[in-house]
Amino acid sequence: MNSIDKLTEIFRSFPGIGPRQARRFVYFLLSKKNGYLDDLAKTILEARKDVNTCESCFRYFVSNGTGSTLCSICRNSSRNWSQLLVIAKDVDFESVEKSGAYQGIYFILGGTIPILEKSPETKIRIHELLQTVEKRAKDSILKEIIISMSLNPEGENTEQYIKKALKPFVEKYGLKLSIPGKGLSTGTELEYSDSETIKNALRNRTE
Amino acid sequence: MNSIDKLTEIFRSFPGIGPRQARRFVYFLLSKKNGYLDDLAKTILEARKDVNTCESCFRYFVSNGTGSTLCSICRNSSRNWSQLLVIAKDVDFESVEKSGAYQGIYFILGGTIPILEKSPETKIRIHELLQTVEKRAKDSILKEIIISMSLNPEGENTEQYIKKALKPFVEKYGLKLSIPGKGLSTGTELEYSDSETIKNALRNRTE
Amino acid sequence: MNSIDKLTEIFRSFPGIGPRQARRFVYFLLSKKNGYLDDLAKTILEARKDVNTCESCFRYFVSNGTGSTLCSICRNSSRNWSQLLVIAKDVDFESVEKSGAYQGIYFILGGTIPILEKSPETKIRIHELLQTVEKRAKDSILKEIIISMSLNPEGENTEQYIKKALKPFVEKYGLKLSIPGKGLSTGTELEYSDSETIKNALRNRTE
Amino acid sequence: MNSIDKLTEIFRSFPGIGPRQARRFVYFLLSKKNGYLDDLAKTILEARKDVNTCESCFRYFVSNGTGSTLCSICRNSSRNWSQLLVIAKDVDFESVEKSGAYQGIYFILGGTIPILEKSPETKIRIHELLQTVEKRAKDSILKEIIISMSLNPEGENTEQYIKKALKPFVEKYGLKLSIPGKGLSTGTELEYSDSETIKNALRNRTE
Repeated sequence: MNSIDKLTEIFRSFPGIGPRQARRFVYFLLSKKNGYLDDLAKTILEARKDVNTCESCFRYFVSNGTGSTLCSICRNSSRNWSQLLVIAKDVDFESVEKSGAYQGIYFILGGTIPILEKSPETKIRIHELLQTVEKRAKDSILKEIIISMSLNPEGENTEQYIKKALKPFVEKYGLKLSIPGKGLSTGTELEYSDSETIKNALRNRTE
Repeated sequence: MNSIDKLTEIFRSFPGIGPRQARRFVYFLLSKKNGYLDDLAKTILEARKDVNTCESCFRYFVSNGTGSTLCSICRNSSRNWSQLLVIAKDVDFESVEKSGAYQGIYFILGGTIPILEKSPETKIRIHELLQTVEKRAKDSILKEIIISMSLNPEGENTEQYIKKALKPFVEKYGLKLSIPGKGLSTGTELEYSDSETIKNALRNRTE
Repeated sequence: MNSIDKLTEIFRSFPGIGPRQARRFVYFLLSKKNGYLDDLAKTILEARKDVNTCESCFRYFVSNGTGSTLCSICRNSSRNWSQLLVIAKDVDFESVEKSGAYQGIYFILGGTIPILEKSPETKIRIHELLQTVEKRAKDSILKEIIISMSLNPEGENTEQYIKKALKPFVEKYGLKLSIPGKGLSTGTELEYSDSETIKNALRNRTE
Repeated sequence: MNSIDKLTEIFRSFPGIGPRQARRFVYFLLSKKNGYLDDLAKTILEARKDVNTCESCFRYFVSNGTGSTLCSICRNSSRNWSQLLVIAKDVDFESVEKSGAYQGIYFILGGTIPILEKSPETKIRIHELLQTVEKRAKDSILKEIIISMSLNPEGENTEQYIKKALKPFVEKYGLKLSIPGKGLSTGTELEYSDSETIKNALRNRTE
């Protein structure tokens, strides 16, 4: 396989990219000056070196050669360490952090558990989560765990699995276990809402 | 204007129908047997006669020549008369009723108030709402008013206007005033949620 | 079934209308003044009376009580009677006439023939077409038949069926049988064109 | 700027990629094994080295260190050298070649000319095209030039510009100048066709 075809194939493996767009990427790159390609290749390799996985929350972060093993959030003592928000992916972290609505600490599962999965423990960082929870609960740092999965069957399956796994620690240390409120989201029109959403919205009504 | 063009124009005034689909409707009707057209014309005229506006909740209902001025909900003494759900349109009523999540009584405003509207009282049934609330509160029937508008600027504008108008009665009779819970709706993925929705979801988190 | 439900069901049978939009139509009509509903019902019944099927081209036309059995096109001796454009539906007629590109006479088949259809002669006005062609060819009026079906399998199936049925007349009277040119349509980008379209465009290239 | 942000920014410059998908690409890459990233960076740099611009048709091709300056098409003496298809981009070449409908030689302009562009000669390889045409026409190799631009205003503007520039050579050497046929493309329905397309289809009708 020649390098055009090989590069096309690599781009096809990118999330959401089909064969045609992969090909457009290749032609786009070929039309660029050499400097651009060098820059791209160099940045990809740099990213690999610069980026570490935080050993506390497991999100990717730029360590910048400081040798730090903790991300900026997990090095920040002024965050609210009594709250732990359990989410599936790094992009979920970005959405929540961008909202400015959360001051606590995160834990990134690194995936979700498909329905009927036989080895759920291989799909998410469940051992790491349990260790983190036990350690911080024992030290009386952690008070509340918030599990925020997508509101679809796979997300709910993951939520149930985590809740069950956390139960002994929740009971032993008297932790609070919560999930984000369900109800009407921005832009929602009652007319087009499903029954489940209406039920949640009416049950969780506020003043 | 001939009757084909006139009928096309009437269909164009239907919600969501453009000139091309209006034309297709006309050709569709012309291709039907006479009985179909007679039936359609008759049903339209019947609907006008059969349908009344409920004098309690103001929704359209089929009176079936019974002379009833109250819809099936407002004639039902086993509904929870202490709750009043204020909504904009008949289709909102259908969504909520279909969800099975609400056992109280409805009030249909018949519209919403555009931003910067100079005569808001002409856009919705605000006088009728205030009369209804005062009467039922005085009789100690009504305890809670739930205002459920769409989560967009016009819906919020309407909500603010109603809340302000209801304030004297809420205070005088100690009524509870609430809105449906805001948060993640069915199918929501954290990654694609706006900051406002995330903020609401985290604030309204539940066990 | 009450008249609201019945009217909803009739609207659901309209082309492209689902249950929710059908319901919105009903509420839209109920919100209208009585005059509007009377007008709609009256116009529907009028359309039935005013509209005839042209006995020459079989399209719907407004006869306006003149007792005319021919549409405005088929009463127009200055049209080019040597050309006959065979199309599937009335809306096709409207598109072609609006383009101003055709001065000949039309013939509306009233449908298309599904693949593997066992009784194709029941799906389109094939007998009427053959009669029309024979009569006008015998009178030396007709010179060319243009068959314009949609460029999809059902359209091609219909085209093949008509061509075969017309063959004896085409040969007997020396008629020209043609189809519209295939190639790039307005807005087409080469990059996104299918192989069939490119093949046709290159084969049918012009100066 | 750290390397995650820098890489995100580079991906945002890719055709059709917004900020969110750029970010997903970065996280996708970070989740891959080192080998994958090495491979990607290496392939990008290889592509740059392996790929040449054909000095005959100006499309990108993999030279594979053979030192060849001609692409596989332009090295192929069994192609029909009497035809030259002038197209805007490499992806257009791929669509045409995939159709199997063309056996001639290509010329890639490398762009199109925006409406009202003041320096059109800087936007496309017009000088190279004229040289190519003159040389091959003089040698009696070239007989026909087919100009295939997109059927939109910018494409038509480019077509007009090229036709004018080619005119002296076309006249001097008696070349044929053509464009792909315009008409109905695959999947087209008459009902939804614009007037221009119907006009072209009827004018270019075939047997």
